[in-house]
Amino acid sequence: MKIPSSHPRAESLRIREILKKGFDEGIVIAQGLIAQGRGETFDYLIGERTTPIAISSIRAAAAYLLIAKRPVISVNGNIAVLSPKEIVELANSIGGKIEVNLFHRSAKRELLIKKRLLINGAKDVLGVGNSASANLSGFESHRRKVDPRGILVADTVLVPLEDGDRTLNLRKVGKLVIAIDLNPLSRTAQTATVTIVDNVVRAMPLLVKETNSLKNESIDKLERIVKEFDNKSNLQKCISHISKRLVQISASNGVLK
Amino acid sequence: MKIPSSHPRAESLRIREILKKGFDEGIVIAQGLIAQGRGETFDYLIGERTTPIAISSIRAAAAYLLIAKRPVISVNGNIAVLSPKEIVELANSIGGKIEVNLFHRSAKRELLIKKRLLINGAKDVLGVGNSASANLSGFESHRRKVDPRGILVADTVLVPLEDGDRTLNLRKVGKLVIAIDLNPLSRTAQTATVTIVDNVVRAMPLLVKETNSLKNESIDKLERIVKEFDNKSNLQKCISHISKRLVQISASNGVLK
Repeated sequence: MKIPSSHPRAESLRIREILKKGFDEGIVIAQGLIAQGRGETFDYLIGERTTPIAISSIRAAAAYLLIAKRPVISVNGNIAVLSPKEIVELANSIGGKIEVNLFHRSAKRELLIKKRLLINGAKDVLGVGNSASANLSGFESHRRKVDPRGILVADTVLVPLEDGDRTLNLRKVGKLVIAIDLNPLSRTAQTATVTIVDNVVRAMPLLVKETNSLKNESIDKLERIVKEFDNKSNLQKCISHISKRLVQISASNGVLK
Repeated sequence: MKIPSSHPRAESLRIREILKKGFDEGIVIAQGLIAQGRGETFDYLIGERTTPIAISSIRAAAAYLLIAKRPVISVNGNIAVLSPKEIVELANSIGGKIEVNLFHRSAKRELLIKKRLLINGAKDVLGVGNSASANLSGFESHRRKVDPRGILVADTVLVPLEDGDRTLNLRKVGKLVIAIDLNPLSRTAQTATVTIVDNVVRAMPLLVKETNSLKNESIDKLERIVKEFDNKSNLQKCISHISKRLVQISASNGVLK
């Protein structure tokens, strides 16, 4: 379907088409489409742009990822079709690994995701098939499998577009978790070390830019950025932002945009 | 996937599974899954229960549908799998017609939806294939086709789970529109005559119950119910309700449920 650029929701519809294509290709699953819809509503409430609140979380996330000794980017179907280039760029920027980790695992889908990342320049993609041979404690059986070279030994994991259980369990086994989640109320958002409340298609390029800009800074400076960041307070600001927007709309008795 | 009833989101996951099954059967399309996700977020913000605000809109909707001379229930893929029984019960209760009307038309999908409704007791299902031979003015080409026995001559149309353009255009050609939409800010919500801001799986049974309860009332009483209802004010109350819930959560610094 062709989307006229004048359409008020053109960008949102464009992203939807990418997901739909990813679905037709077998990378995205039905649950991923529903998850996309859930995110769309929060993005619409946030205002479909990166807030200053998100900017400060992106800065903290960049610092955490650069401080990390063994950072890993966890990839699912949705993020693989939405930000494949940025995943590779970010891995290069932070010297991190890329690992496929699916809630609904399938060998075929893992391979398709790996292929998509390789096409986009990834040197290595962990967690595919038998590579995910290690067991992470605390997880349900099908989510326990991780790559012994990746998430198992990671100190910091970036989980864009993941569900709550996953982040909570990674925290329980002592990992720092950077999450990108449009829902500031979700379990993922509430349990992550840093939560970027923004659309991945906007946040990922900004995160790459920020790590590139901070990568030559001293560890002291990075530690200071991390120290000054308060995730709980940041999330409260996000919730207040949405709430204020709703009040404005309610008062003006009009539609959002 | 089996969902334990103890899961905090069991009902939401159950509905998601119905949609997923409808998708596998070819009744629901990818866009319908994304739309389901968008609704899920609003339902979560509303509190996943029918509010007193929604109850009053359901009462007004029932009165409008009973006053109508030629009410029609417009059916798409999502509502056909979520509430097939209630669509038939409501049509019987109000003496109304059922018409399939899809944004993404396909002869196969129309037939599948018709079949689903017939299995659930529908006597007749309009708008399928060549039955949609009439053109409604103001609509884009593929949405213009309606059944000359149904929407074309209807005075009141119930559109559960429809997009904004459709409701606006039906209003433009002089129809009264009853919409069920979880997003109180949407164009559908803002342009309908009565907007029920509730999940269809909760609202449809309540609407059937209400029409059954009011169907023997005098036209005077029905007219009074309609007169006393203010859709704009009702929508503002919905928006305030969501906003208040966000403030509460923000203050308690906790997750929603």
